[in-house]
Amino acid sequence: MNFTISPIGVIHTPFENLEGMPIQPTGALDVTGSIVINEAYEQGLRDIEGFSHLILLYRFHCSSGYDLLVKPFLDTEKRGLFATRAPRRPNPIGLSVVRLVERKGNVLTIKDIDVLNGTPLLDIKPYVPAFDVKTVTAVGWLEKNQEKAGSLKSDNRFIEG
Amino acid sequence: MNFTISPIGVIHTPFENLEGMPIQPTGALDVTGSIVINEAYEQGLRDIEGFSHLILLYRFHCSSGYDLLVKPFLDTEKRGLFATRAPRRPNPIGLSVVRLVERKGNVLTIKDIDVLNGTPLLDIKPYVPAFDVKTVTAVGWLEKNQEKAGSLKSDNRFIEG
Repeated sequence: MNFTISPIGVIHTPFENLEGMPIQPTGALDVTGSIVINEAYEQGLRDIEGFSHLILLYRFHCSSGYDLLVKPFLDTEKRGLFATRAPRRPNPIGLSVVRLVERKGNVLTIKDIDVLNGTPLLDIKPYVPAFDVKTVTAVGWLEKNQEKAGSLKSDNRFIEG
Repeated sequence: MNFTISPIGVIHTPFENLEGMPIQPTGALDVTGSIVINEAYEQGLRDIEGFSHLILLYRFHCSSGYDLLVKPFLDTEKRGLFATRAPRRPNPIGLSVVRLVERKGNVLTIKDIDVLNGTPLLDIKPYVPAFDVKTVTAVGWLEKNQEKAGSLKSDNRFIEG
C-alpha cells in the first residue's frame, strides 16, 4: 500500500532555518510568503481566489526519521508523537491553515505562514468552516500551553534524533 | 523531491462503497468507525485520549489520476481542483477532522467519519483550536452550498476520469 508523493510546488517564506522560526501559524501572524505552483497545475487553481483561507499540506523536508515519544516545543514532558504536531513522523507531512491574499497565475501570496523557505508543497485544499471548524471539548496536554504557540520559537530539536 | 508514503494503519467504517457515502464529516455526524494503528506505532498514541478531535490524513485509495477542473458534489459548475476537496488529486491525500471517543491500545473509536472502509491512514494529528480554527471571510463557490454537505451523498464520479 506504499505510494509515491511528488510536490506540486514550493512554499517561499522568510524563514531560512529552524532556529527562531514560529512553531505554528499563530506565531507567524502577518508573516507573508508565497506559493509557486508548478505551471502544469496552474489550471487547478481556478476559483481559489474566492477563499480567504487555505489548508496547505507540505513535506517536513528537513526532518528525517521519528521517535514515538517526543518532547514538544510546548511542553517539558515527552508525549506520544500522534498527540503532537512534531515534524519527525513516519509520514513527514505537515499541515498549516494560512490566509490567501492574492493569486497571480501560478503564484499565491499568503499570510500567517510558519514553514521553512523552500518547503515542498504537496496539496492545497480550501478551508471550509462547515467541514473544518469543530467545537472542541478537550485539547489534552496542550490545555495549559496552546496559547503560548504565538510566542514560542522553534529550535533544531527535530532535525535529527 | 519525491518520497514514499507508507500507511500507519487502517480506518474501518460502515461505508463499503462510494455510492451513498457522506461527502464530508458533517454528513457523517455520529457515524462510528475505528482506527487500527500498526502495533509498531502504538506508543505514539500516548496522550491522544486527552483530545476530543483529531485530524486524520489518509489515502484516497479508490481514486487514481486527476483532472485539474472538476465538478464537485456541491456544485454544477467545473471548479479548479485545488479549490475543491475532490479525491482525485496529484497527491491523493484526504483530510477529515473526527471526534475521538476512546482509545484501547492501538485501536481508536471515532465518530463523524466519512471515508470508505479500509482506507489507509497516513497520519494523525491533534486538532487544536489555537492552530486550526480560523475566522473565515470568504468560502468562494461554496458560499451558497457548504451547508448542503450535511445531506448530499457521494457517487462514483471520482473513481476514474
